[in-house]
Amino acid sequence: VLAPHLVLREISSSSNHLIKQIRLLHERSGREKSKLFLIEGVKLLNEALAQRVDIVDIAASESFIGGGMRDLDQRQIKIVHAVNDKLFDSLSTTTTPTQVVAIARMNQASIDDCLRGEMPLTIVLDALQDPGNLGTVMRCARAFGASGLILAKGTVDPYNPKVIRAAMGASFALPIAHDASIPEVLNWARQKSMQTVALHPHADISINDFDFAKPTALFFGNEGHGLSPQILGNVDHKIVIPMVAETESLNVAISAAITLFACARVRNLRSNRQ
Amino acid sequence: VLAPHLVLREISSSSNHLIKQIRLLHERSGREKSKLFLIEGVKLLNEALAQRVDIVDIAASESFIGGGMRDLDQRQIKIVHAVNDKLFDSLSTTTTPTQVVAIARMNQASIDDCLRGEMPLTIVLDALQDPGNLGTVMRCARAFGASGLILAKGTVDPYNPKVIRAAMGASFALPIAHDASIPEVLNWARQKSMQTVALHPHADISINDFDFAKPTALFFGNEGHGLSPQILGNVDHKIVIPMVAETESLNVAISAAITLFACARVRNLRSNRQ
Repeated sequence: VLAPHLVLREISSSSNHLIKQIRLLHERSGREKSKLFLIEGVKLLNEALAQRVDIVDIAASESFIGGGMRDLDQRQIKIVHAVNDKLFDSLSTTTTPTQVVAIARMNQASIDDCLRGEMPLTIVLDALQDPGNLGTVMRCARAFGASGLILAKGTVDPYNPKVIRAAMGASFALPIAHDASIPEVLNWARQKSMQTVALHPHADISINDFDFAKPTALFFGNEGHGLSPQILGNVDHKIVIPMVAETESLNVAISAAITLFACARVRNLRSNRQ
Repeated sequence: VLAPHLVLREISSSSNHLIKQIRLLHERSGREKSKLFLIEGVKLLNEALAQRVDIVDIAASESFIGGGMRDLDQRQIKIVHAVNDKLFDSLSTTTTPTQVVAIARMNQASIDDCLRGEMPLTIVLDALQDPGNLGTVMRCARAFGASGLILAKGTVDPYNPKVIRAAMGASFALPIAHDASIPEVLNWARQKSMQTVALHPHADISINDFDFAKPTALFFGNEGHGLSPQILGNVDHKIVIPMVAETESLNVAISAAITLFACARVRNLRSNRQ
């Protein structure tokens, strides 16, 4: 189960430095101080390794080392810390313990990093609160070819373990700039000649007809309060998701998913015609 | 705050019959035995009243009766049971107590009820497990004009309080048939000349090109295992959500939302052309 080059180090004490460090990384304050975060579970860890995330340390339960280890891509790993099962369970942020956890270094992107490619599509999230929603938006952003995510101040921590889980690896694949200010992002988009776009229930243009085939910054707001007046008052275009039951509203993650899908459709049609 | 016709009855004992009944309805077994379920919070309760759900009893906290009551549509209500705040908190299924709860009668639909309208679009869910996912699918089904939902055996209870919350009133607006068997639904769709359709990652037809403008039964499967071989082997058409990152997968609620959106787009285009 173990690759020949791999060194095992046993940890049996809950006062061990690494154990303490993992516990500190459960909290946002611990992550922000150290610029480190946790990756839990073999599937996500393999994704992180494939995306060349900087892995600092790996701890695994003894049962994992005896079995699940064969599913881990061990090629780039030198040392694994073996932790007895009971102590390992106390390290997990989920109720179904994940058996392996890595400490990884944050790869903080600048807002300019979110401009990759010929036709950038940058998602700007303002004060999104729910970790599951952020993870879902990240997963859809990756699936539909967004070039990066900008998180404004007040948005949930993208390194929150629940976000990492819900993002299913998109955290490692997409540039994510955080702690941005909305006026700064609006200015930046203007300077980069990007159109700025926001959803609005009373907008005239349907996302089916909107010309997404330009560099675009797409804004989404808070779960309860929606987009701020600052964003709605300053974007170039407001667009709407056409619904049959017009009084309905959709959750922000669903709205983002549908808008990203519609954007990919329009861009694809455009490039097929040229 | 109180309408003149409204009668208040005080409940102070936790052994009161109504209090016990509300607690029983927290559990699926209690709901199934009585064919009753809970509606928590003033917003959902107003939706239920507007949709003419059969409300059997209403209990509210004393603070709600002193204030929030003005937000409740009291026209069709005769009696409200006033419960002291502390006792009321213990009745709530959420950590943020909702202050008002109604006991309502289930309105169980048959699969034929899910055929409303000239061009039915029936969603069939097989073994969906997560209450949030089911609620989200219901909300999108309503927003994009589905005619009803059929839940196969093994699907999460649509009257689970988490489903009711996530569905944001769609529970009351849509016919929902449950405990169906998949072979029965497949036969039924054939008899009703509906096309049967399922998403599949390797399908040849994109949801953007698929002809949704026919009576359609759309199948979605379990979060972990996807669609069963029984469904994949028997549907008329398999379709795919085109993605930029082709190795990606999407959560079932997101997939359903995007497919329903695409279906509404195609149907709308078709009807505009005719």
